[in-house]
Amino acid sequence: MFSQTTEYALRAMSCLALAPDQLVPTTTLASVTHVPPNYLAKVLQQLAASRLITGRRGVGGGYRLARPADQINLLDVIRSVGHLERITTCPLGLANHGPNLCPLHRQLDSAAATMIKMFDGVTLKQIIDTPGSVNKPLCDANRTSEVTIGGSIKVRPTK
Amino acid sequence: MFSQTTEYALRAMSCLALAPDQLVPTTTLASVTHVPPNYLAKVLQQLAASRLITGRRGVGGGYRLARPADQINLLDVIRSVGHLERITTCPLGLANHGPNLCPLHRQLDSAAATMIKMFDGVTLKQIIDTPGSVNKPLCDANRTSEVTIGGSIKVRPTK
Repeated sequence: MFSQTTEYALRAMSCLALAPDQLVPTTTLASVTHVPPNYLAKVLQQLAASRLITGRRGVGGGYRLARPADQINLLDVIRSVGHLERITTCPLGLANHGPNLCPLHRQLDSAAATMIKMFDGVTLKQIIDTPGSVNKPLCDANRTSEVTIGGSIKVRPTK
Repeated sequence: MFSQTTEYALRAMSCLALAPDQLVPTTTLASVTHVPPNYLAKVLQQLAASRLITGRRGVGGGYRLARPADQINLLDVIRSVGHLERITTCPLGLANHGPNLCPLHRQLDSAAATMIKMFDGVTLKQIIDTPGSVNKPLCDANRTSEVTIGGSIKVRPTK
């Protein structure tokens, strides 16, 4: 349903949310998220342009979230790299439709409204810290103690 | 949310559903659906490959639905040009996740399940024949009598 770019953006943001106090190098992000480095670099540029992440170049550089994970909704991430909006006027510009969408675009608008509601209500914090969840996103290890993902990101266990 | 290709495929299928007994030329379809002809030609090839439409080349040629509009769901159309499936295993292939999706992919799977349910239950017939609807998809005219769209497709008024 969502594009590959959206999937990758959500993985990258989840990864950064798991390491809130670190600048994570792009190479490490690519390794942890299983995303081709060149593709990921473009996704990260889009996330930075949307001010969801900030970066620093050079040795010791990388990316971190621009604000706490409980202040970033999945909808913010999805919209930063793609389009998820209500349909308010006829996409074909048919004059006689006016404010009344046809049944096709009413159906598509209804789907968009449902998706917006589903993703606007979920923060990155909730995604990485779901009570009772066996697995964390991207973590190839059980979270019984400090978890190391990708060989370099250390993630504190959640309470 | 959905790709431009999906939007165009749904327009084309709605247009063909409005003209069930005609072979509609690609140029006419492009005009009625407001889709660039070259782009539409590729979309139509995908719809034909999925056996949702059949075509005939040459003078008097064009496309028609491969089966009645009440036997084609919007989900059929969406899947013919894109991807809308449940997520059953970890997309990253993380071994320890096993059958348990992480919270991120549970959320994405939940969204996919919701969309599948929304679009599997709606046929093209319902889209072009919604009781009480002021407008038909793509029709730049009120449906008080026989409607001509794009200058060549004549559509019978619905009951």
